[in-house]
Formats: sequence, C-alpha cells, structure tokens
Amino acid sequence: MRYSTISFLSDFGHADEFVGVVHSVIRSIEPDATVIDITHGIRPHDVRAGALALARAAQFLCPGVVLGVVDPGVGTDRRAVAIEVGEGASVLVGPDNGLLASAVAMVGGATAAVELTNPAYQLPKLGGTFDGRDVFGPAAAHLCAGVPMDEFGPAIDPATLMPGLLPVIGVEDGVLLVEALWVDQYGNVQLNIGPDDLAEWGDPFSLIVGDRRTTIAMRPAYRAISTGEVGAVIDSSGLVSLAVNGGSAAEALGISTSDELRIDRTDGRSPGASVSVTLGRSSSESEGS
Amino acid sequence: MRYSTISFLSDFGHADEFVGVVHSVIRSIEPDATVIDITHGIRPHDVRAGALALARAAQFLCPGVVLGVVDPGVGTDRRAVAIEVGEGASVLVGPDNGLLASAVAMVGGATAAVELTNPAYQLPKLGGTFDGRDVFGPAAAHLCAGVPMDEFGPAIDPATLMPGLLPVIGVEDGVLLVEALWVDQYGNVQLNIGPDDLAEWGDPFSLIVGDRRTTIAMRPAYRAISTGEVGAVIDSSGLVSLAVNGGSAAEALGISTSDELRIDRTDGRSPGASVSVTLGRSSSESEGS
Amino acid sequence: MRYSTISFLSDFGHADEFVGVVHSVIRSIEPDATVIDITHGIRPHDVRAGALALARAAQFLCPGVVLGVVDPGVGTDRRAVAIEVGEGASVLVGPDNGLLASAVAMVGGATAAVELTNPAYQLPKLGGTFDGRDVFGPAAAHLCAGVPMDEFGPAIDPATLMPGLLPVIGVEDGVLLVEALWVDQYGNVQLNIGPDDLAEWGDPFSLIVGDRRTTIAMRPAYRAISTGEVGAVIDSSGLVSLAVNGGSAAEALGISTSDELRIDRTDGRSPGASVSVTLGRSSSESEGS
Repeated sequence: MRYSTISFLSDFGHADEFVGVVHSVIRSIEPDATVIDITHGIRPHDVRAGALALARAAQFLCPGVVLGVVDPGVGTDRRAVAIEVGEGASVLVGPDNGLLASAVAMVGGATAAVELTNPAYQLPKLGGTFDGRDVFGPAAAHLCAGVPMDEFGPAIDPATLMPGLLPVIGVEDGVLLVEALWVDQYGNVQLNIGPDDLAEWGDPFSLIVGDRRTTIAMRPAYRAISTGEVGAVIDSSGLVSLAVNGGSAAEALGISTSDELRIDRTDGRSPGASVSVTLGRSSSESEGS
Repeated sequence: MRYSTISFLSDFGHADEFVGVVHSVIRSIEPDATVIDITHGIRPHDVRAGALALARAAQFLCPGVVLGVVDPGVGTDRRAVAIEVGEGASVLVGPDNGLLASAVAMVGGATAAVELTNPAYQLPKLGGTFDGRDVFGPAAAHLCAGVPMDEFGPAIDPATLMPGLLPVIGVEDGVLLVEALWVDQYGNVQLNIGPDDLAEWGDPFSLIVGDRRTTIAMRPAYRAISTGEVGAVIDSSGLVSLAVNGGSAAEALGISTSDELRIDRTDGRSPGASVSVTLGRSSSESEGS
Repeated sequence: MRYSTISFLSDFGHADEFVGVVHSVIRSIEPDATVIDITHGIRPHDVRAGALALARAAQFLCPGVVLGVVDPGVGTDRRAVAIEVGEGASVLVGPDNGLLASAVAMVGGATAAVELTNPAYQLPKLGGTFDGRDVFGPAAAHLCAGVPMDEFGPAIDPATLMPGLLPVIGVEDGVLLVEALWVDQYGNVQLNIGPDDLAEWGDPFSLIVGDRRTTIAMRPAYRAISTGEVGAVIDSSGLVSLAVNGGSAAEALGISTSDELRIDRTDGRSPGASVSVTLGRSSSESEGS
C-alpha cells in the first residue's frame, strides 16, 4: 500500500514557520508525496473547530494520508495515532484527542489503528513540543513511502480512540435547541441542523439569540436575501446557515462559534414531535447518498 | 490542448477549509495539474479588488488555466464561464461578474467563451453556495485533463461578458482626479496613473486628500524617501505609488482602497492639457512593450 | 549541480498577490522546481524576525535553494546575493542585509558567494521595487535549472557579507539579561537561552519584566503547567520558552518580541559565574550534535 497525497490541517497559522518546516520534513523523507494544505487557520488549541473542519472537508479529500495537528496535549500521555479507514483506502494521522474522530466517522469508521511509538520513524527531539514536525509529519511521509502501518507501533483497539464531541440538539419547552457550529470567512453562521429538521418549525421560523427574537426565512441563495434581512440558506455542507446578503450574519445577530441558539415557531405553537439529526448531513440526505 | 498549471485567486481566506477543499477536488480529477495560489486574501465579495489583483498578476502567470472565484452572486443567475485567450494559450474560469475582465483585456482579449452548464463536469451539489468547489474547480481540472472547451456548455459571445470596471481619472477645475487602486501589505498606495501622466503636474506635485494638501516628490526607491516624508515611487506594476520609508503611506495620509484623490501643481497653476491613461500600464510604456 | 527544492520565506503576507507571482515566475523558468513556503508572515520589513525564523527552520529544510526576501532596502545599493554553503549542498538567495546570515552560520558558513548582477537571469523591471519577482525568484529558478553560480555575477568575498545581529545576553549586577527572541502563534515567548544556561539561576527562577517579578518553574510540557501559572519549557528549538497552559504567556506577562528581560535567583543571591551561549542551541547541545 502506497499513498501519494497528504491532506494537512493544523492550528499552526501562517505567521510562523511551523507549516513550512513540516512540509520540509515530509519532503526530506518522501519527495514524491504531494501535500495539500486543508487549512492552518484553526484557532490555536481549538480541537473541536479542527474536528468540524476536517469533517466538512472529509468527503472531498483525495484518498491517501490525512495529517491533522491541533494538539494542546502535546508532551503529555495522550497517544499519537494512525487510524486506517476503508480497509486501507486512507490513513488519518494525529493526536488521539478527538480531532480525527468526526472525519473517521464520516468515511465509515476505523478499520485499524496503531500508536506511533517507533522512534525509527520519528525525528530526534530537541524539545518535547513539536510533534507535528517530529512524529506526525514523519509518519505521514513514511506512510507515503510505503512503510506498513504495523511498523509504526503497537496496534490499538479503535474502540479505545477518543470520540468526537457531537454538538447536541434537542427540544426544551417546545423550543428547538441548536448550536452555531461555525462562523466562516464571510460571517455566515452554520447550524447543526439540515433543512428537513426545520420542517415542523415553519418557514419563516423564529430565531432566539439571548432575549432577541428574529424572524428568518429560508432563501434559495445568499443573493436572494433582501437588503437588511437576515435569512437562511442551505449551505455547501447541506446544513442550514444564517446569512446576510453582502454582510456578516454573525455580526448582525451577535453570534459566535459554539453559541447555543433557540428556534421557535413564529406563531409560538409547539410542533408535535422532536427531531433527531446527525452531524454534517441531514438524515434524509444521508439516506440518499 | 492540455494545460498543466492552474493559477488560483479567491476571497476564501485561510481561516476556513475552502481553499484546501478546492485543491483536493482538482487533484481528485487531475492529479498532474499544478495549482499555484495567486492569493486568497481578497476582501470577501470585493470583485473589483480581485479583478485588479488578477490584472496586476496577469503578465507574470504561467500559460494554462486561471481560476478566479470572488462570487457574491453565487446561486443567482449570473453565468459561470470559461474564457479562452490567445487562441487557446490560456483559459480563465470563474463567474461572469467582471472579475476576469481586466486580466482578459491585459492579455489581448477573449478569443472564445462558453457557459459552464454541463453537469458531467460538475460535482453534485449539496447546497447552492460553493461553486468554487462544485463548478469552477472541476472545470479547471477537466481543462487540464484535456476536455475541450465546447464540452462544458454552449458557446457565448465574448462581447456579452461583463466588462471590468475601469477606475476613471479625469481633470476637473485644473485638478487631476485619480483613485487609490490598492493599499498593499506595506501600506503603499498604488494610484491609477503612470509616471508620464504626472509630467504636467510637476515634481514635486501636490496631493489633496479631503482638505489636506501634501507636497510629494518622486523618489527612485522606497529607501530614498526621507524619514517623516511621504514620497512617490514607480512601483512594481509601473504605476505611481505613494510610500513612506519603513512605514505606511495609507496610514500617514488616511487613505483607503478606492478613495478618490486629487493632484494639483504645487504652484497652483493648471497645466494646459488633460491626460488619458490606461489601467495597469502608462500609455507610453504600453506602446513600448 | 542541480537543485529541485526552493524553500521560500518572505514578509509578503497573504493579502496581496506577491507570493503567487513569485511562484508563477519560478514555474515559468523551471517547471520542475518544487517551492516550499516556509512562511510569508514575517512582519513587514522585520529583517531580524526573518533571520531568526530562517535560522530556526534551517536544520529542517531540504537541501537545495533557500529564497529569503525581507528587503526594506530594495532599490538602494544593498547587494543582491547568492551564498553557497556546504560546498554547494545548498544556496541561499536574497538581499545582503543580514537576513540570510544566521541560517548560513547554522549550516556551517558560506563556501562561496556571488552578487546577482547578470540581467540575463533577471526579469526586465517595470519599476524598482519588486526584486523578489525580478531578481531573487528568477535566480532561485535558474539555479534549479542548472545555471552555475558564477554565471549570475561577480564572486564576492563571503567575509564581506552583512552579518546577522546576534541577540546579546549578559550578566549585570548579578542578574541575567536575556531577550524575547520570538512570540509565536500560541503566545509562547522564546528566550535566547538554553536550559543549561539557567542552571546557576535555579528552578524555579525569578523573571523580571519591568518592575514585576514572577516566579517561573521549568515544566516537562505545556500541559504540565498549572492553570493560572506561567511556566517554562524546553521548546521545539531546544531553547527556553515561557508558556501558559491553554493561553498566551506574552499576554500574561506583557512581553513583545525583542523585549529585554531579566532573570534572577528566587533567593536573590547572585551565582558565581557568568554564562556564554550561542544562538539557536545551548552550548552543551551543540557539542553533542
């Protein structure tokens, strides 16, 4: 088994040389590997944000190695792992802290895993703080060079891997509780629900942020939202996003990533049933794909 | 016809995974294509800034495919297009909203164009909002893979393409009206005039920002500007830029991109004739190249 | 001699098209060269920060060409140079302003150098201000294409190259004077000392910032620092870094890059001897490697 692509996500940012050094280390080990930078703009140490970005990107990535490094626990006893999915179609490499879990789940779950302990496939450490350079990057490169998984360290039971934190939704006093999963570059606010989950809450529905109630209508495109209006669209992940045409919904509504929001019917009448949704795709879409 | 380079510009930023996902989609379709990121730091939805950056870069890009995505109208009826230049030397792919127009003009104009409508060369849509991933990136990749232009959709008359907005200059009451085209990373302010256009206005000349008048001298290099002075240089595009040695001219003068500025003679006497300039190169230079 | 990798560092940022244009120019000259972006996030014109980032990265870079452009003196008579190290193992290309000096020193010093004057290996200039595009990028590409060093211009004596500025440390009134070399993406503060240099100052030691004295203990990892504590770790360069678990030490202590700091014993008693350290590695580690 030999991989040619490394899809790389981290919280390293672009102000420092971290990303470039990992690229250099990979190329020193396996010059034929191609590294695609998914993003390095994850907020420092924000494992949840990194996991969600990986999950959103997962279905579009090239088969091969996925290298994820958002690692506040570096230097502690958290495990460094490689997780095989699809019987070897791809391998995800990173810390065992939940970062990789949602992406692993989205592509069918782990078929094997190892802990990265073999020093033969690591750089000698100058300090204890840069496993992206010393452990994870080298493992990704050696996987591309054809080193088998079981050379990297002892097999571990995938059931012992740290699970991802799934944003919960629920119904309380007839109101739908949702979460702002992500505020993107444009100020759009992605919610953890698909359009089907809104069926019982009406269109328009009522969004409650703190004490403020805003009426929101589903629109077919950002440009179909009227000037001054906050609308909702089905976004590029198939989820519901709040948006402002040519502006920032996050700013207009005072919403930040991870905020809990409430959705109510505009007529105040509770729908009859509760809903159940999954991360990343609405349930009806998942069945169809 | 087969292309090997995709030069990619967008307003996606680096905080999210947008850029990486488009790279992944391209590589999934055509692994032998090389993607060069021109910049993804265009201000969100700023079509004009994207068009100017593409125009500045155009003469330095590798022949091949140019992928430009600054697309506030995604999801509306604005067309998605591929524009051939130089009888097939290169193809520009993006929304038909003026983003590509200035670059097309700089390299000699369109020799053909098609609308990107064929779903065989697009990803199935999850939502209506990420044509960079679903339409434009795949088109760029398929062009590199050798798919002929006319496979992507119906030919369209290049004359119907949205033109670029050319920053106007003019003379009013004996004062030259110019525009701050661009404030760069260093705070330099690029104007929409070449050095020849200043000939009649003297050196030094008088720059009027709002009610404030500053005397500006042409200098041979940034370092030749004295401490505390705002000077002017011929910048790397051959245009006149306002600059401060080791500081930001934009900050010193209170200028933002797109501001209209006025230039006067320091003795207050009007020159005899008006001037006419073209975007990107002063007229005398264009003739010489 | 032929190189295949160009490791590229600059202060160009990602808001503008500078980085992409240099990539395009390189690919136009030598399509088989691979460009690795070390970082383009160096603060504009901060030659010292660029030199330190290159020095930190140096030992991890692929052999080949290193292209460094932080160049406030562009357009003046500062020289454009190519510096050979390791008898041709690698060549560093950039302005002769100290930017490359520390990296050159870290890999054994210059074995030859030339001034880049031959216009045959430069782009014709539109203006006098973008040597990354017109001089340095083309030189890096032509080196990869196999052009010998002496084709680029006259040999120069490496002893005449601008030296790097080494941050000084010293002992004054029984207190160790150190410098904040670098504040990274996470707010960690790298000092210009290795752990051995702290031996005589005790663990914990006392850090003095302005008038404020903080007791700092060495910790084995970021995560081993208690909540609310500022600790010190041996960082990924083998140097001492101040850190806060899950937060920013720079913010907690009010420290910026280049600040001078003082270290004292917690009992206030002076150690008997002064210390001598080198940039980048503590003396004992350098001997061991």
